[in-house]
Amino acid sequence: MSSCTSSLAKDVGELKAMMKAQNKRIDTLIKHIKEGCEAKEEAPPESTMSNMNPYIECLNPDILYHLALSTDTTDFPKMFGDVRFVCMGGTAARMLKFANFIMKEIGLKMNSGVKLKDLAEDANRYALYKVGPVLCASHGIGGPSISILLHELIKIMHHAKCQNPVFFRMGTSGGINIEPGSVVITSEALDGQLRPVHEVVVHTVPELRPAKLDRELAQELKSLSDPCHDGYDTIIGKTLCANDFYEGQSRLDGAFCSYTPEKKKAFLEQVAGQGVLNMEMESTAFAAITNQAGIRSAVVCVTILDRLESDQITTPLEILKEWDSRPQTLIARYMQKVLFDIGDEDCSGSESCDCAGGDQAQPAQEVQPAQQAQPLEQNQSIEQTEPGDE
Amino acid sequence: MSSCTSSLAKDVGELKAMMKAQNKRIDTLIKHIKEGCEAKEEAPPESTMSNMNPYIECLNPDILYHLALSTDTTDFPKMFGDVRFVCMGGTAARMLKFANFIMKEIGLKMNSGVKLKDLAEDANRYALYKVGPVLCASHGIGGPSISILLHELIKIMHHAKCQNPVFFRMGTSGGINIEPGSVVITSEALDGQLRPVHEVVVHTVPELRPAKLDRELAQELKSLSDPCHDGYDTIIGKTLCANDFYEGQSRLDGAFCSYTPEKKKAFLEQVAGQGVLNMEMESTAFAAITNQAGIRSAVVCVTILDRLESDQITTPLEILKEWDSRPQTLIARYMQKVLFDIGDEDCSGSESCDCAGGDQAQPAQEVQPAQQAQPLEQNQSIEQTEPGDE
Repeated sequence: MSSCTSSLAKDVGELKAMMKAQNKRIDTLIKHIKEGCEAKEEAPPESTMSNMNPYIECLNPDILYHLALSTDTTDFPKMFGDVRFVCMGGTAARMLKFANFIMKEIGLKMNSGVKLKDLAEDANRYALYKVGPVLCASHGIGGPSISILLHELIKIMHHAKCQNPVFFRMGTSGGINIEPGSVVITSEALDGQLRPVHEVVVHTVPELRPAKLDRELAQELKSLSDPCHDGYDTIIGKTLCANDFYEGQSRLDGAFCSYTPEKKKAFLEQVAGQGVLNMEMESTAFAAITNQAGIRSAVVCVTILDRLESDQITTPLEILKEWDSRPQTLIARYMQKVLFDIGDEDCSGSESCDCAGGDQAQPAQEVQPAQQAQPLEQNQSIEQTEPGDE
Repeated sequence: MSSCTSSLAKDVGELKAMMKAQNKRIDTLIKHIKEGCEAKEEAPPESTMSNMNPYIECLNPDILYHLALSTDTTDFPKMFGDVRFVCMGGTAARMLKFANFIMKEIGLKMNSGVKLKDLAEDANRYALYKVGPVLCASHGIGGPSISILLHELIKIMHHAKCQNPVFFRMGTSGGINIEPGSVVITSEALDGQLRPVHEVVVHTVPELRPAKLDRELAQELKSLSDPCHDGYDTIIGKTLCANDFYEGQSRLDGAFCSYTPEKKKAFLEQVAGQGVLNMEMESTAFAAITNQAGIRSAVVCVTILDRLESDQITTPLEILKEWDSRPQTLIARYMQKVLFDIGDEDCSGSESCDCAGGDQAQPAQEVQPAQQAQPLEQNQSIEQTEPGDE
């Protein structure tokens, strides 16, 4: 395919996405006109979060300390009510890159005079960006760090009355006996003792909570990979979640090391024999906490080395950057599918069909098509330039 | 004391610090002249780190991945060989504030045309600032996050052949039954099960390592507090280190909560009864890892609420900022004492005395006195403006 044809194909894809979104907006407008002013305003349903803390209702305001957000200064339903996807990764830099990437991928554009704002910048802890229906957050390193973020993101979902959001963790990891650059979708997250649990010590007693991920979602993601075209493998397998990068992952290059290279090799072969494809440091907490809240979730990590070959990461920065984008690409395909493709053939132009997909389709204006200098509605300080839009 | 007298007293203090540092530099120069060119260049001693991983010597280069530093691109002895204090805190913002604060406190100045550089910025993980003999790093949240940083900082100490560096963690914490704004120096760090240990799972087996801090250092710090003048208490006591901010610390404001307010109260009273003054999330890892390396270390945290009174942090930002600076002030006093005060009366002007204190006093030029437009030697890109300085 020549670059010209490729460019044309891309344009056609974008135009299709725009047309679909416009159809949905027209449907919504027709519905509004038909129903007229007589239709009762339905109260928005409560959020779909499970097992929520009953005492939250007693808090007035509820302060989300590590995100510098509070229910008395932020209108959560207005600001976050349209969130359908929550994506997390280790660093603020990765999540800003992802936020700008996903904006293009789901057909959104920002006015050239604005940039994405870190909505949690006042807290100096986690970065938080919102791009239409996608919330992007950095989670730092390790279970304790991601657990704080998850508690506060789930409280955002609850206060904003979000409906069935899907949570993703994307990141880097050490692979075991697979080609570096491969993408691993986690089937099961195991702790350092190879148990599929996340430990939370409550009142001095360790509670082991099931670190369950959504297997159907993992399969859906896998089906969106294309090894021949992508040039790398995307594999489903188990992930070992360690609380320590060096000794906890049997590296020989930490400040301390009490074992031999032979013991290290034996350990890696043992875990590989049990189906473990990679190691990282957040998956059990992520899986257990999203599972507890009844949130569908997936962990997608690229492997940046083969731990049977080495401990140190010597791959050039440019290659690492390209690898880093691979989980992002897969997750973007999933979002495109959910937002634009499901029921495509049946509903284009039909006023009654919810072709935005999912159980609880959102009003069409929430996913705005790419338009010239069209800012997002995500931020009160960015003006909505399209008149008459809700 | 009038503002004029106060300003004069400050000037006198600064001049004293300058004079002492100049005396040391003159001593060093005299020593150099006496020894002349005939004196053999002594090889610098190895670092004082204990229990170092023997395999580090096989690494060429050794890449400190999360700090974006490598032994093949950085001359560690030259860049970090003068480090005597390593200070850690949660956020990059706090550590940049501390780095600029400690610069003044130990009598250093930067050229007005430069600013402190984050030496680890390429890695996007931790912030790392160097101010003369003080290395300042942000550690993120939780044991797994601080453990990576500690492994890599200890490797820096090792490669740079540092002599008896003292490590500090400074931060915020939740107090139990003490006045908010009080400063707690940790006597013993306990995990969620109230054990004085840090767990590292090696080859699927949990190892419990003693979370020991230096009691003498804690007492030295305490002796530098002055409740009447400070206006707040500085107390030595036990610290509970939780792996979770919400359920792990018996808060009622997380996304989940399976206990009652009565159970929470009973738990807080139980741990208070055992001498626990505050709760945070890094002290056991910090204590155990520094202890393993034979590093003297201390944890100094301000309490930002009394957990018997509330869970949410409602104190105004300006007050929180002032409280945040309290551990920094105490640690600054300690450094001033070590750098300028020990043996003060005996050694001023004496060419043979090591009045910089500590077991292995550093050459005087490493602590430069405050001078007009005098940049630090810390960074190769900042020119050393004083001719003839080593």
